[in-house]
Amino acid sequence: MEAATKAAMPAVSFDTSPDRYRHWKLTFDGPIATLSMDVQEDAGLSPDYKLKLNSYDLGVDVELADAIQRLRFEHPEVHAVVITSMKERIFCAGANIFMLRGSTHAWKVNFCKFTNETRLAIEDASENSGIKFLAALNGICAGGGYELALACDEIILVDDGNSAVSLPETPLLGVLPGTGGLTRVVDKRKVRRDLADFFGTVAEGVKGKRAVDWRLVDAVYPTSQFKQRVATRAQELAAKSDRPKAGPGIALTPLKPKVTDTSLTYSAVSVEIDRDKRFATLTVSGPEGEQPSTAGEIQALGDQFWALRAFRELDDVLLRLRVAEPLIGTIVVKTRGDQHAMLKMDEMLLANQDHWLVREIIHFMKRTLKRMDLTSRSFFALIEPGSCFAGSLFELALAADRSYMLDDPEADSTLALSAMNGGPLKMSNGLTRLQTRFLAEPERIEQALERGEPFNPEDALEAGLVSFATRSGWPSRAAPRCHPTPSPAWRPISASPARKRWKPRSSGGSPRGRTGSSSDPMRSGKRVP
Amino acid sequence: MEAATKAAMPAVSFDTSPDRYRHWKLTFDGPIATLSMDVQEDAGLSPDYKLKLNSYDLGVDVELADAIQRLRFEHPEVHAVVITSMKERIFCAGANIFMLRGSTHAWKVNFCKFTNETRLAIEDASENSGIKFLAALNGICAGGGYELALACDEIILVDDGNSAVSLPETPLLGVLPGTGGLTRVVDKRKVRRDLADFFGTVAEGVKGKRAVDWRLVDAVYPTSQFKQRVATRAQELAAKSDRPKAGPGIALTPLKPKVTDTSLTYSAVSVEIDRDKRFATLTVSGPEGEQPSTAGEIQALGDQFWALRAFRELDDVLLRLRVAEPLIGTIVVKTRGDQHAMLKMDEMLLANQDHWLVREIIHFMKRTLKRMDLTSRSFFALIEPGSCFAGSLFELALAADRSYMLDDPEADSTLALSAMNGGPLKMSNGLTRLQTRFLAEPERIEQALERGEPFNPEDALEAGLVSFATRSGWPSRAAPRCHPTPSPAWRPISASPARKRWKPRSSGGSPRGRTGSSSDPMRSGKRVP
Repeated sequence: MEAATKAAMPAVSFDTSPDRYRHWKLTFDGPIATLSMDVQEDAGLSPDYKLKLNSYDLGVDVELADAIQRLRFEHPEVHAVVITSMKERIFCAGANIFMLRGSTHAWKVNFCKFTNETRLAIEDASENSGIKFLAALNGICAGGGYELALACDEIILVDDGNSAVSLPETPLLGVLPGTGGLTRVVDKRKVRRDLADFFGTVAEGVKGKRAVDWRLVDAVYPTSQFKQRVATRAQELAAKSDRPKAGPGIALTPLKPKVTDTSLTYSAVSVEIDRDKRFATLTVSGPEGEQPSTAGEIQALGDQFWALRAFRELDDVLLRLRVAEPLIGTIVVKTRGDQHAMLKMDEMLLANQDHWLVREIIHFMKRTLKRMDLTSRSFFALIEPGSCFAGSLFELALAADRSYMLDDPEADSTLALSAMNGGPLKMSNGLTRLQTRFLAEPERIEQALERGEPFNPEDALEAGLVSFATRSGWPSRAAPRCHPTPSPAWRPISASPARKRWKPRSSGGSPRGRTGSSSDPMRSGKRVP
Repeated sequence: MEAATKAAMPAVSFDTSPDRYRHWKLTFDGPIATLSMDVQEDAGLSPDYKLKLNSYDLGVDVELADAIQRLRFEHPEVHAVVITSMKERIFCAGANIFMLRGSTHAWKVNFCKFTNETRLAIEDASENSGIKFLAALNGICAGGGYELALACDEIILVDDGNSAVSLPETPLLGVLPGTGGLTRVVDKRKVRRDLADFFGTVAEGVKGKRAVDWRLVDAVYPTSQFKQRVATRAQELAAKSDRPKAGPGIALTPLKPKVTDTSLTYSAVSVEIDRDKRFATLTVSGPEGEQPSTAGEIQALGDQFWALRAFRELDDVLLRLRVAEPLIGTIVVKTRGDQHAMLKMDEMLLANQDHWLVREIIHFMKRTLKRMDLTSRSFFALIEPGSCFAGSLFELALAADRSYMLDDPEADSTLALSAMNGGPLKMSNGLTRLQTRFLAEPERIEQALERGEPFNPEDALEAGLVSFATRSGWPSRAAPRCHPTPSPAWRPISASPARKRWKPRSSGGSPRGRTGSSSDPMRSGKRVP
């Protein structure tokens, strides 16, 4: 059982907490938190490289992501965060190039995706949560280090004649910065493109007054003034926050799913994996039993409140599938539960959305759904009798690449919308999933939102809310035509015994099924009687 | 000399005309032109593949691009274009996969770039030139064939029980459609993403009523009605045009540059190539002598009118550099001529911009500058005494990745703006180059445009119009830090003797110069006395 327990677990755990951080130190001083980077060279995920000069691998970024998340939920009294380094004359050298050199393409993609999501989480906290971020660059800041600084609201660089910001990827490695550096330089900080072009080709970067003139940083101060100026500016940023003056927050406790070789089972989420078919089934259960009706009751429940608990579990399962199960091409998304309870939950969340904690929960649901949007697997939602695709959980069907609604004359499936489908859970494109779906027919959005009752398969198909309605069994007939070219070169970056079980299997059904062949029984546009 | 003449020429010639087309037939019937695809299997650019089933290679698309261009300049009486096939039951099978399989990455990139630019030229003609395009799909339309149809304003598909539109790249080849198919399906035609996802995974595509219901095509008609319906719809589209009722247009005659092993010399454009340094110098000369002052005079000059002639030459040189000189990393852009004459030219163009021909010329200048924006080389503009970076030609400096202005106390350089910098020559992002440059300081745009006199180096630097002002010689000191990792695997797709001279040379100076090293003499932000 112990071996089986480990088998489906990623060697990278996304479960951490400040007392277990190896690379960051999180300290507090009233409304200001300080996140100090102090990467332990020998504590990388693999022994194949050393994390010198505050360079990072995924393990370092998992701690950073955890810290950002905890600041939002556990520390409502924090109004500004200073990100700095505990090393002398070096802020961060960026992603570790030896780690990158030894990684597969798939690993690098997931690494860059996660690190960019962490930086987006910083920007999301600034935009939506009243937490401002100040990058205090006390030394050289290169590549991914500068990309981290770019995610902050402001950047202060020490002016010591040596410390510079740089994106040396192109001149040194012949690659482009992989975590949003180019776009944040020109689109977020609005650096002139010709200057950005020059900046991106000089390995040593830009420092001092030129860095300010070119908008690469917001200010430079000599070493003698640096700490005081950072402290002052952090206080100014904190003063603008609309967060509570004091705590308490709520504790984010470890998730602890039950793990077998082929499944992960949380309280409201589970996933079953069929590696031979390169197929997984993800199930999310709606709220059960009595639910809170006020923000105070939610706060008392803390991380056991369904909305937070279920979406934390969903977030965790998505991350695990990305890194630990690269050959799972298709993920069937199911839900179950009481649609009415789910709609009541949404109503209650929206009624309390001005409370800091409820605001955090809704934005976290939004970020988790974005993580699903940007997970490069084929998600097929299966809407069947007993499923709970209602309101916020219906976003799972909208986030899926396509949806199949089972039209069983003996036990009809239904789905339902709530006001949560109308705004709070926007995608990365700034639109809701309904807006994105109905670009050509925006009038359908209001029609669907105003219906006020569940949709049966015929109505859902007519309203454009599902891709297909089908009477045939699923997934046996409509199964995985997906990812016809998985990376056969997938190789985890370290070769711990636990990992061997995830290597590609030579066995296995064809990755192509019958979905969409001209003879398949699915249909759309009208309901077959 | 004959060998030398061939050496710098691409095996792919961009010079063609309807009487020389091998793959397309261009016919006219009043305001309707018909472009019929009839690809000759054995007339590909390489003997290594056969262009079966109206599949295409770059040579086929060069003819298409030529036809679109000639319709705009030579046929103002054409108000709508039907794009169809002369083959039975097949419209177009898309890009030839054997050609793609045998091509280098660099070739594929240039191939997809050119074919997409051709499709963008179709959309530009529709949006700006009063020519509507109707794809008349008389048979199977797959991959690049459907991407061509997507570039048209409307798509009519024959409903014969067999003919379908499809993007089979993913299910058959495991790649994504490379010429805008995905974006045009979801963003231009606003096909629902879930349906697009399904569509993009079924090799056989979608046909008949479902193709209409899903917005993949605009209409389907049975074979018996197809031709008549297409003709009727083409007449309806033509009726909306604001183009002249009748000709004449102007003839686009062959460019015929003087060619040596290391240079191409046209009337107003020349390029000198230094392959050892992976470096080229591109020079554009402004208008000389008396220029027309009315649209009638421009029309009398035809393709010898400076603005059309110079930009046709520039367009040709960019295309040749892309395909024939893949190892040239840096292109220094120079101009020469009379800035005052250039500003008068711009004034005259804008005064006559409502005339169909002047409109065409301005949009062609815009498209050529976009082609430069999207040519993946490092363009460095060098502004020196005697240069002609004024108005439309100053766009070359803005299109360059960066610009250096020589600040010689004995003969100062100048540059100047015109109203052409304020709107007509927009980039692919829908903004002018000045708007793109000054995202952070939009007030600078009006300030610069309203100045009314030339900028010397100090003023130009202060106004943010050049990247650097320098007294040092150039390019000797500021030269090519560029493309540190050229593709050593470049291989032309055919191996004609003429091509051997373009193979990578093992000789050669380091690709890295001293640009941007901390000790370099360039400066910005202020002028060194």
